[in-house]
Amino acid sequence: MGSELLSDLATEIVIPVCAVVGIIFSLVQWFLVSRVKVSHERQATSPNSKKNGYNDYLIEEEEGLNDHNVVAKCAEIQSAISEGATSFLLTEYQYVGIFMVAFAILIFLFLGSVDGFSTKSHACTYNPQKMCKPALATAIFSTVSFVLGAITSVLSGFLGMKIATYANARTTLEARKGVGKAFITAFRSGAVMGFLLAANGLLVLYITINLFKLYYGDDWEGLFESITGYGLGGSSMALFGRVGGGIYTKAADVGADLVGKLERNIPEDDPRNPAKVVKNWQLFLCVCVGLWAGLIIGFVTEYYTSNTYSPVQDVADSCRTGAATNVIFGLALGYKSVIIPIFAIAISIYVSFSFAAMYGIAVAALGMLSTIATGLAIDAYGPISDNAGGIAEMAGMSHRIRERTDALDAAGNTTAAIGKGFAIGSAALVSLALFGAFVSRAGISTVDVLTPKVFIGLIVGAMLPYWFSAMTMKSVGSAALKMVEEVRRQFNTIPGLMEGLAKPDYATCVKISTDASLKEMIPPGALVMLTPLIVGIFFGVETLSGVLAGALVSGVQIAISASNTGGAWDNAKKYIEAGASEHARTLGPKGSEPHKAAVIGDTIGDPLKDTSGPSLNILIKLMAVESLVFAPFFATHGGLLFKIF
Amino acid sequence: MGSELLSDLATEIVIPVCAVVGIIFSLVQWFLVSRVKVSHERQATSPNSKKNGYNDYLIEEEEGLNDHNVVAKCAEIQSAISEGATSFLLTEYQYVGIFMVAFAILIFLFLGSVDGFSTKSHACTYNPQKMCKPALATAIFSTVSFVLGAITSVLSGFLGMKIATYANARTTLEARKGVGKAFITAFRSGAVMGFLLAANGLLVLYITINLFKLYYGDDWEGLFESITGYGLGGSSMALFGRVGGGIYTKAADVGADLVGKLERNIPEDDPRNPAKVVKNWQLFLCVCVGLWAGLIIGFVTEYYTSNTYSPVQDVADSCRTGAATNVIFGLALGYKSVIIPIFAIAISIYVSFSFAAMYGIAVAALGMLSTIATGLAIDAYGPISDNAGGIAEMAGMSHRIRERTDALDAAGNTTAAIGKGFAIGSAALVSLALFGAFVSRAGISTVDVLTPKVFIGLIVGAMLPYWFSAMTMKSVGSAALKMVEEVRRQFNTIPGLMEGLAKPDYATCVKISTDASLKEMIPPGALVMLTPLIVGIFFGVETLSGVLAGALVSGVQIAISASNTGGAWDNAKKYIEAGASEHARTLGPKGSEPHKAAVIGDTIGDPLKDTSGPSLNILIKLMAVESLVFAPFFATHGGLLFKIF
Repeated sequence: MGSELLSDLATEIVIPVCAVVGIIFSLVQWFLVSRVKVSHERQATSPNSKKNGYNDYLIEEEEGLNDHNVVAKCAEIQSAISEGATSFLLTEYQYVGIFMVAFAILIFLFLGSVDGFSTKSHACTYNPQKMCKPALATAIFSTVSFVLGAITSVLSGFLGMKIATYANARTTLEARKGVGKAFITAFRSGAVMGFLLAANGLLVLYITINLFKLYYGDDWEGLFESITGYGLGGSSMALFGRVGGGIYTKAADVGADLVGKLERNIPEDDPRNPAKVVKNWQLFLCVCVGLWAGLIIGFVTEYYTSNTYSPVQDVADSCRTGAATNVIFGLALGYKSVIIPIFAIAISIYVSFSFAAMYGIAVAALGMLSTIATGLAIDAYGPISDNAGGIAEMAGMSHRIRERTDALDAAGNTTAAIGKGFAIGSAALVSLALFGAFVSRAGISTVDVLTPKVFIGLIVGAMLPYWFSAMTMKSVGSAALKMVEEVRRQFNTIPGLMEGLAKPDYATCVKISTDASLKEMIPPGALVMLTPLIVGIFFGVETLSGVLAGALVSGVQIAISASNTGGAWDNAKKYIEAGASEHARTLGPKGSEPHKAAVIGDTIGDPLKDTSGPSLNILIKLMAVESLVFAPFFATHGGLLFKIF
Repeated sequence: MGSELLSDLATEIVIPVCAVVGIIFSLVQWFLVSRVKVSHERQATSPNSKKNGYNDYLIEEEEGLNDHNVVAKCAEIQSAISEGATSFLLTEYQYVGIFMVAFAILIFLFLGSVDGFSTKSHACTYNPQKMCKPALATAIFSTVSFVLGAITSVLSGFLGMKIATYANARTTLEARKGVGKAFITAFRSGAVMGFLLAANGLLVLYITINLFKLYYGDDWEGLFESITGYGLGGSSMALFGRVGGGIYTKAADVGADLVGKLERNIPEDDPRNPAKVVKNWQLFLCVCVGLWAGLIIGFVTEYYTSNTYSPVQDVADSCRTGAATNVIFGLALGYKSVIIPIFAIAISIYVSFSFAAMYGIAVAALGMLSTIATGLAIDAYGPISDNAGGIAEMAGMSHRIRERTDALDAAGNTTAAIGKGFAIGSAALVSLALFGAFVSRAGISTVDVLTPKVFIGLIVGAMLPYWFSAMTMKSVGSAALKMVEEVRRQFNTIPGLMEGLAKPDYATCVKISTDASLKEMIPPGALVMLTPLIVGIFFGVETLSGVLAGALVSGVQIAISASNTGGAWDNAKKYIEAGASEHARTLGPKGSEPHKAAVIGDTIGDPLKDTSGPSLNILIKLMAVESLVFAPFFATHGGLLFKIF
């Protein structure tokens, strides 16, 4: 790799130090957030510390600041949310635990069978003069790293949920003091999550690689083949987390970390690895290109989803003529928002490939993901603000406080869309790099669209995101239908509920939601996890390359458009509700016909922006990394159907 | 090509005979339709023939059969529709006429410049031992065939409109006698259009080829290169027709005819043309595979869009909880409906390629399109029935008659969706075959996804259908907004309009619609027409291949899902309105909340199923055929940007 900026030793030190610094930084942020007191806790544990709490609150004289009932109510709602989320996640983990064990066994058997479970060393794939560790070792270590990745991901999801539910009520309470204080609380909590998860992922991966190295020594091939399992474990859990729970586990979608492995997986003598890389300024430019493409995507996303710009205002305006025009304009907005990001991605692919082939693309992805911690922070900030608004509403806080949380939430929709933009942009680059590694490992020299094996893969691959979206959208729709029916049932059968005299049966509602999401996450999960296996085993590596390329180029578009359409609808509704401009006031107020139309758009957008859209970037990465993990198996035993005929 | 079933002479005779038989058949059908009298005509021209007309009507004793006013009203509405449509088309033709001239000049200049406007013969591309006619001749004949194709297409569109407006009121009047009589009138009129246009296209192409042959002699390369312009002319007009007017000009989208040209465009020594095609049974199987795939697509489309099956009923049921769930379910239905058609297309591609390479794919496309006349008939039947319903409503005919036309219309939605399914399936095969021809003509040996030139083409190509859909959907939305505002203005400013005492100002409404559609058809049209030119000139043939492949695999999915989602929404609404089952009655009647939700879905579906969806198959074919026409130019002068850097 030519002259390096840092020596090997320095690299060995810098990485864990960065991770530790990240963790410390996130703990500091957590400490700052924890200084916002949800009085309930204190009241429950030490009633004599009440006074201090009161003094804190008396610093400012905002309305509702001294209202014990509101604070107690917030605390109550917060703990209910936290309990519900915890119970949901624990139930979900039972399901995914079974999947994890089953898939781990599958990995071991498939990879072990590559060389007939032999314990003998074999000639290396890329450098046949050298001896490499046996395939059985790769099978064992891949399985271990898969499980490690899965556990890291699950843990990240759980931590993320804990932080979010810790922060939501605090944000609500701070909203009494002003929008600025509420914002800083929500954003700090987001930063806790972002830095903690990014640093944690990096640290676990670092430790794992170093432990594996003890066995592998200088057998880089085996080491990097095994460590790919880490990405597969993390991504697969992230998919289930996203599809099943919508919990922000994508933090653990260790795409960023994984890219590092590509550095060495492309053999030196590969035609796509031009000898001229070896110059650091070229790699630096690759990083810049990735970062720049990410920025462009971020700006474009903001433009299309923030209600300070004309696109969302146009969508809001179209509500004048009803829900139908709102939906048409929203869908068109999403489609249109794809254009510039795709050009940005295409240019960054071309430029980074010109500088350093597939390795350049991996480096560009790293560049785009270099902002991952902040990206996660702004991404996590969204649901925290959303939750804070809900708590304010349920705690019966005043209209003005709800307005503040709404303002935060509107910004949150935009930041969430930006986060999704980054995620999908980097997913495209990461998947392409993984795809390159897969093709190289599977021993394919060209992926020629004009061969029917590849072309049928391409067209079927381009179809997969639609199939996947159909499943997830219908699931959300069905669950919503069931929920509405349950609520109607409760209104009809529980006496006094309508008048507010009786309490609704929350538990049943939560159960319906839990059952639906857990049951419904299985088919789309199976689609993503089984497709590479089925295609690889029965149709072989050429068709699988086609499927990966097709899913990549088609999935990126749907993911971007779905996220932006959903974000725009949500903010068009908020634009009408806030009534901050003359134009907005002509459309409102809440309950007006245009507002009703906007609410319909917002509801349609939910599954688009929170379920199918963001799952798609996991889909394309997951299929690529899974193909890479199983590449040795497919290369040896794959393509049964074509072998038979 | 081995032993042929028919001698050359027999082929020369069979083709024009088929075309003439088709034209005669369609004229017979027209005669049958014309026997339904719209009395207005008779009353106006010869009052003494009234009695006969009366006698006709008295044969059956259905309600309203003797109501002069209703018949007169129908005749009046029909002529208003016909006049409006004629004036719209004539205005449209002025626009597209300018385009046609400009593009014809472009073709001449670009293709002429390939060999510097030299009048000397040159060595053939595929067979360098032979001498071929000069590139200048190809430029001239391509331009001529482009203009011929465009005129054929425009003429077909005009004829189609005339037939449809001739048939609509007749269908309404026949609906008084029963649904069966109305159906046969609508379907016969569809058959007039289908057979007339298919036969006409075939005949013009046949004559053109034979005239060109007088000059070209045995220079097949030049002949087929020139004749490709015919497809470009037809397809480009069809695009403008579809986008601008929604008139069913796609009849003229001479994909079917064009495929014939591929038969010889793949050189004998091309590696993708295995020597074993020589055997007729293999070609027969290719035809069968295409036909079979078309059938599967037809069945699946019917399943997903007819309200006799559960998918549409589920969508209708989701209206219970409002427009949002309706939209979510409808979108999910469309996405899901893509799965089986894509597998059918993929399998037919693989099988037909295995039998006879790219030629096999062209033959499979021919197989799918062998039902084109009937396909066009059932396709044209839809809008005729739709129109008939509108006329019944406007003429103030009884509820029962409206129910009959609604039943026809519901079937029409399904047949239209089936027609679109065939169109998109065949478009995929035709485009792939054209793509193959383009790659061969451009001298590219492989289209390797892993080269960045191709990959950026692929991802940008996959984005184009989104860009295109965003434009067309937003156009429909904007036009609708303007129209609603105009109607509101008229209600506010024309005294007595609300009470039905004054006549609305139809002319202004028509003008708004005309202006909007003509203005709005330019950007999407330009996108499709300019993309191959820009990409070919600046980025070269490799990137252009990527763009074509990307647009193909992505466009097919959006086209199928958009058509089916739209069809399903329309029929879900009709399902509720008809109230033919216990379940449907729980959702109705008209004006109920579920019905209102269904109406919203139906409105959203209009641009999806009638504008963006069906335009996409023209998009993918048009880009492929345009690339093929300009392939000699791109191969010689293309890729400027990469040449500079």
